[in-house]
Amino acid sequence: MRLSADAVRRLVSEARVATLATIDPDGRPNLVPFCFALDADTLYSGVDEKPKATKRLRRLENVKRDPRVTVLVDHYEDDWERAWWVRLRGQAAVIDGARRRHGMELLVEKYPQYREDPPTGDLVAIDVDDWLGWSSSPLE
Amino acid sequence: MRLSADAVRRLVSEARVATLATIDPDGRPNLVPFCFALDADTLYSGVDEKPKATKRLRRLENVKRDPRVTVLVDHYEDDWERAWWVRLRGQAAVIDGARRRHGMELLVEKYPQYREDPPTGDLVAIDVDDWLGWSSSPLE
Repeated sequence: MRLSADAVRRLVSEARVATLATIDPDGRPNLVPFCFALDADTLYSGVDEKPKATKRLRRLENVKRDPRVTVLVDHYEDDWERAWWVRLRGQAAVIDGARRRHGMELLVEKYPQYREDPPTGDLVAIDVDDWLGWSSSPLE
Repeated sequence: MRLSADAVRRLVSEARVATLATIDPDGRPNLVPFCFALDADTLYSGVDEKPKATKRLRRLENVKRDPRVTVLVDHYEDDWERAWWVRLRGQAAVIDGARRRHGMELLVEKYPQYREDPPTGDLVAIDVDDWLGWSSSPLE
């Protein structure tokens, strides 16, 4: 059953991790788990990886070439009646200036891990324009 | 750090759920969580959904048009040193005959849920040709 807009927003807001899909140069989906903070219709995400590890920056190269991304937040249980997922579509961009500072504040607030070791690389904002949530049963 | 081939295979084999990325007609990634059974280099997955729900068959339409898929198996912990992920790339196809029966046996063996309610729709096989696993720290 389709989840309500309120339920979808709450589940995304509370999630600690999601999967980010970007589009590789050859058109294949590239997937990576990522941490994020939600504010209104935007997900903010840091890149806490060394800039020299070129392989790991592929998601950024992908986003610069094609900003269309898909995000999955999901919850699995062996009791499938209690499983749910949310799929978001949006446009991603590397951000700087005031927007970067705002995103960083949200990330540090949500993840204590970032307080000791804040992301030093680029920050990405995903402006979500399509929200879809699904569960087998009504969520309590 | 990159995980060994043995570790990657073990983690995928033990996982209960993964994320499947297919390619929508407009080139965007489509994401959905899915259950699967691994045998050698193939993931088998059922579609336990009603055939009339056309929306939910999009992954099958996508695979028939472009068989290239990406799969993410990941494990999150707030202790990020203990998080890991595995990304697989491969070719997906709807299967029938002996191959379908084999996949069904594996799925029913892995998921007790399927014993009572086996998947009635198409079965998909993903032949994996690229395995990549990553963790912050060595896995015990």
